[in-house]
Amino acid sequence: MIEIEARKEAASRTARLDAVFAALADPTRRAIIERLSRSEARVTEVAEPFHMSLNAVSKHIRVLEASGVVERRRKGRDHILSINSHSLDEVDGWIGRTRRYWGERLDAMERLLRELKKDHKLGPKDRKHGSR
Amino acid sequence: MIEIEARKEAASRTARLDAVFAALADPTRRAIIERLSRSEARVTEVAEPFHMSLNAVSKHIRVLEASGVVERRRKGRDHILSINSHSLDEVDGWIGRTRRYWGERLDAMERLLRELKKDHKLGPKDRKHGSR
Repeated sequence: MIEIEARKEAASRTARLDAVFAALADPTRRAIIERLSRSEARVTEVAEPFHMSLNAVSKHIRVLEASGVVERRRKGRDHILSINSHSLDEVDGWIGRTRRYWGERLDAMERLLRELKKDHKLGPKDRKHGSR
Repeated sequence: MIEIEARKEAASRTARLDAVFAALADPTRRAIIERLSRSEARVTEVAEPFHMSLNAVSKHIRVLEASGVVERRRKGRDHILSINSHSLDEVDGWIGRTRRYWGERLDAMERLLRELKKDHKLGPKDRKHGSR
């Protein structure tokens, strides 16, 4: 039972990562996120700076809502959009872990390189002072 | 001239962000990146753990190469794949900046909340000690 639950959780985490990365793969959607990261706003306010129809912007907003990055609430006749502040935690976590991996590899290579350089420097010196 | 160059640079940065985020929006491609972040590997080694044809994995690898995340070099008859260690810097930077924005907003709200709570606590105390 626990294994099934764990697998379900992993599958939905995978689906969320897919959806958030796909949502971020578009300049209009990233600009909408940047706008909303400053303050919540009405749909019409969000759409205003873009040179496209309200309908086209609305489609992008729906992709962002489906990914969980953007939330919508009603306030009278207005639709207010805001950022779900935890929605980027998982993608940030994935990138961080993956970069740490290869960062560690690069660090290890750098250490090796420094060791090699040190040995190279010691080599000629040692010879100068008469050791073989 | 400088403005045109700056605009070109911004456009290519946008295109790179689009390509990297789209490349990351697939579980097989993320698994390939995780594999290569541990060590470089031959195409066949990378493909081995996946339950799909070599051709299907190759398509994913080509998407990763086009995004700049994965690099390929020839070593005799082998094709060696490795991670371009700087390829995630830009997407990481974008996420970091955007989260910082709304993190600051959340911090400001938290401070306001603490102030309000403090005022609330002081209120009854003041009354206890005889002030109106």
